[in-house]
Amino acid sequence: MTTIENLLEGRSAASDPRSTDYADALNALAACAAACTICSDACLGETGHVEQLRGCITADLDCADVCETTARLLLRRTSTPNDLVHAQLHACALACQRCADECAAHAERHEHCRNCAKACRACQARCNHLLGVLGSEGTVEMTPTDEEIS
Amino acid sequence: MTTIENLLEGRSAASDPRSTDYADALNALAACAAACTICSDACLGETGHVEQLRGCITADLDCADVCETTARLLLRRTSTPNDLVHAQLHACALACQRCADECAAHAERHEHCRNCAKACRACQARCNHLLGVLGSEGTVEMTPTDEEIS
Amino acid sequence: MTTIENLLEGRSAASDPRSTDYADALNALAACAAACTICSDACLGETGHVEQLRGCITADLDCADVCETTARLLLRRTSTPNDLVHAQLHACALACQRCADECAAHAERHEHCRNCAKACRACQARCNHLLGVLGSEGTVEMTPTDEEIS
Amino acid sequence: MTTIENLLEGRSAASDPRSTDYADALNALAACAAACTICSDACLGETGHVEQLRGCITADLDCADVCETTARLLLRRTSTPNDLVHAQLHACALACQRCADECAAHAERHEHCRNCAKACRACQARCNHLLGVLGSEGTVEMTPTDEEIS
Repeated sequence: MTTIENLLEGRSAASDPRSTDYADALNALAACAAACTICSDACLGETGHVEQLRGCITADLDCADVCETTARLLLRRTSTPNDLVHAQLHACALACQRCADECAAHAERHEHCRNCAKACRACQARCNHLLGVLGSEGTVEMTPTDEEIS
Repeated sequence: MTTIENLLEGRSAASDPRSTDYADALNALAACAAACTICSDACLGETGHVEQLRGCITADLDCADVCETTARLLLRRTSTPNDLVHAQLHACALACQRCADECAAHAERHEHCRNCAKACRACQARCNHLLGVLGSEGTVEMTPTDEEIS
Repeated sequence: MTTIENLLEGRSAASDPRSTDYADALNALAACAAACTICSDACLGETGHVEQLRGCITADLDCADVCETTARLLLRRTSTPNDLVHAQLHACALACQRCADECAAHAERHEHCRNCAKACRACQARCNHLLGVLGSEGTVEMTPTDEEIS
Repeated sequence: MTTIENLLEGRSAASDPRSTDYADALNALAACAAACTICSDACLGETGHVEQLRGCITADLDCADVCETTARLLLRRTSTPNDLVHAQLHACALACQRCADECAAHAERHEHCRNCAKACRACQARCNHLLGVLGSEGTVEMTPTDEEIS
């Protein structure tokens, strides 16, 4: 399987020392978007529990959309200006945090929520790391409820 | 034709006094995303000038993606948290500003760039207005080159 | 407000006699995608009824995604090959038909479902019309339940 | 890294014997969408050659959009009807074939085009395989120019 790392190397401008940070973020964004779409769909299939999963479903839908757009901006690196990338990464870290919090509340009962919360935390961490590497102060602090979903 | 205003009224929660601000922003986002997609495509069709339009094309692509995701978050108003909406609107205002600046530089020669710059300025203004209504300080100042594309 | 019609005229290649058909389809696609996103969100807000609206929500989510991608292909008219446009329009007509059927079943109780069913029928009709104009046989027949949502 | 395979297992309905076919298609779709976005951006960065890469760029943009929407429909498996999945997979196979053909023509000169053509061929094959598994006749035949990009 061709990886993001290989694909990024195929670019003329790929001698960027931060290529690994980009690739790590892109992998986390793709995994998070997929986890969110699967979780929202699986939540809708939980007969008898859909109503209490509404916050989770909406957070999933928002997070999937934001992750996919953030990934596109990171992939389109040739001339995307830094301030836009910063702002979008910041929005993405917030979307991941919100979705992780919603899903963590249902993690014990539903495996798809547990998977999604983990993918969101990982993606939030990668977005924050990339924000740090790019020199922004716009990172979003992790909420301290990580251990329950580890 | 059914309008965004009518559609928003069909929601149980539509008695929001800010519905007009949302509808105005959503109309501007849809027009901006369409203008950006059309402009990027038309730029690729400008034989002999594509190379100098590269910054314009990339800004168009970024702006279309960001506008569409921002619209989805605004449409999904039932439970989207305010801080995420703020952050995404802020990113969107930046994407619009950047794209307007790129397109304004080609506005005299290409009608699609002129149209796109206008749609981006209008969308940036609507995003900033909504940020103000929602109580954020995250607005993005307009660049003072508006008159050349009016 | 800048309209799709104006934006399409800004293209060098806009002397296409089918520009009106494209513009009509694009307006219907945008209205349908918005109606679907609003409907899915409003369904999630219908306390006590979410569970029976699950089919509606999933059809809304699919239809919004398919409409937005179809619109992008139509907007990117400079060199998109006809067979891909045909196939995507055909998928879109199916997505609209399915979503209209799901929403029509809830149209009497929920205004957002009524609005969404109407937008989906209109979009399906525009996609089918454009398929006819473009010379394809891939149209999707309307289901005969239109009158209940008119 | 959490994989699509793991995520799909987290669903209640995951005892589907075709889960592997879905997972393979989803991995190919994600890789293809990323390859297309990277290729379109890298093409825009090829100073002196952008003009001759226009067909490649447009095919990349179409293919990325179509792959991402197709992936969403496959991920949302709980209640997506088969005929819509078929039609969307068929459109996707066409988008991949077209993009592979465009990129193959530039594969010797540009590594990103070579990578993209390979990812498109692989994705087309996975879409066709899934169409076969799902019982459709809508597969899109491979063009016989594979060896030049292997």
